[in-house]
Amino acid sequence: MTDTTPETFAGTETEITAAILVIGDEILSGRTKDKNIGYIADYLTNIGIDLREVRIVPDVEDEIVSALNAMRVRYTYVFTTGGIGPTHDDITADAVAKAFGVELYEDERIIAAMLERMKPEDLNAARRRMARVPTGGDLVLNSVSRVPGFRIGNVIVMAGVPMIMQSMLDHVAPTLQTGVRLTMESIEAEVPEGAYAAGLSEVAQAHPGLSIGSYPSYVDGKFKNQIVVRGRDPEEVAIGVRKIEAMLVPLRAARNVG
Amino acid sequence: MTDTTPETFAGTETEITAAILVIGDEILSGRTKDKNIGYIADYLTNIGIDLREVRIVPDVEDEIVSALNAMRVRYTYVFTTGGIGPTHDDITADAVAKAFGVELYEDERIIAAMLERMKPEDLNAARRRMARVPTGGDLVLNSVSRVPGFRIGNVIVMAGVPMIMQSMLDHVAPTLQTGVRLTMESIEAEVPEGAYAAGLSEVAQAHPGLSIGSYPSYVDGKFKNQIVVRGRDPEEVAIGVRKIEAMLVPLRAARNVG
Repeated sequence: MTDTTPETFAGTETEITAAILVIGDEILSGRTKDKNIGYIADYLTNIGIDLREVRIVPDVEDEIVSALNAMRVRYTYVFTTGGIGPTHDDITADAVAKAFGVELYEDERIIAAMLERMKPEDLNAARRRMARVPTGGDLVLNSVSRVPGFRIGNVIVMAGVPMIMQSMLDHVAPTLQTGVRLTMESIEAEVPEGAYAAGLSEVAQAHPGLSIGSYPSYVDGKFKNQIVVRGRDPEEVAIGVRKIEAMLVPLRAARNVG
Repeated sequence: MTDTTPETFAGTETEITAAILVIGDEILSGRTKDKNIGYIADYLTNIGIDLREVRIVPDVEDEIVSALNAMRVRYTYVFTTGGIGPTHDDITADAVAKAFGVELYEDERIIAAMLERMKPEDLNAARRRMARVPTGGDLVLNSVSRVPGFRIGNVIVMAGVPMIMQSMLDHVAPTLQTGVRLTMESIEAEVPEGAYAAGLSEVAQAHPGLSIGSYPSYVDGKFKNQIVVRGRDPEEVAIGVRKIEAMLVPLRAARNVG
């Protein structure tokens, strides 16, 4: 790892990238099934940000710091979920501060917001932990709870509870650099992958600007294959789709022979 | 990265660890919602293997190689999903071979199995790609398709289609070292996290052998908090649960006052 600042690695004007760091023993033990990765993936794709990597790590400070430092220098943004509550296993703020080499301060705005819904005597040490923000951080509000997430540098720290996380994403999204949204087209192949793999590869090689994937699924005892063409230039996507459809025509016809 | 062999890092007799490497652009774009991580997490927890980390990477060889090499030296096992089909974006076998510094060979058993359900003239170059296994690898069969995954060293390479992956996991599981299964107990807190955070932290500190987590969820407009106590010694888990229940009694009573 070098000391290069995140900015150096930020995407070009049309290529804004991101990673997600999911923090939580409960996901790794299987107790909680993550619902945030797929949501954030869709959300970022829709605003033209390329999600490039996801990591899920346990509630262990060194693991969080190390994953965060590996990712924040590689991608334009890193979104974390989980670990910002009041209990002893909520150590995300500490880990993020450590990763950035800064201290945590108690944010008066968060204390004030918490006091709007609780008596001063209920604002105990554990609850005050939720008001801690790394120095240099900005709050990321949400419409569900009084306790915000925060953003420091290119790292956006969000709650793990999906409804709160989703609201935080809505609050932070307008502040993000976004790229050209990908155009995506899907084709139902109707023939086995092995029959069109060579033809598909030819189209992919002719169009390095396109990302072409083939995705089998197994539904009700039958395989179904979907070809997905993605790219920043809608015209090139359309050309790719036409080439693939043309390539599939004789293969589909052959399927119906004999 | 050192040259240390995986065995050096394998868990102690009672601590068998694992990581999952999910390979696929379709998960990162949001097009496909992963269903494998949660399934594998439950499966491993049930057989006494600790899932410690998950990474999702795109269909890019260097990314797969680098993630695999980082994880295979740290954990007893690494399970990969995705990228073992016949199309150009299926590059998992190539990446795994590269990570281990070995060549791929065409496995005659896979070719024979494929020929059981297709004519020799249909066994084209793309389909033959699915018969490639890194030298030194063992096949990981499944009951759904004729194309197996494989295992090389401590890395188990499985399909991305959930039904096939699940069958591969069933086939490979009996060959794995397993640890002492964790005992897990859940407690419905019935009071806010901030009210019991200090008391819970005390119990956690008194029992380093226990992993104690507090998990808020937001259902039908209400927060619900669940405390989960996990540990290898069932007696210690029971003691932890009793201490937490005792700690909660006055807090629950206070909630009903006034």
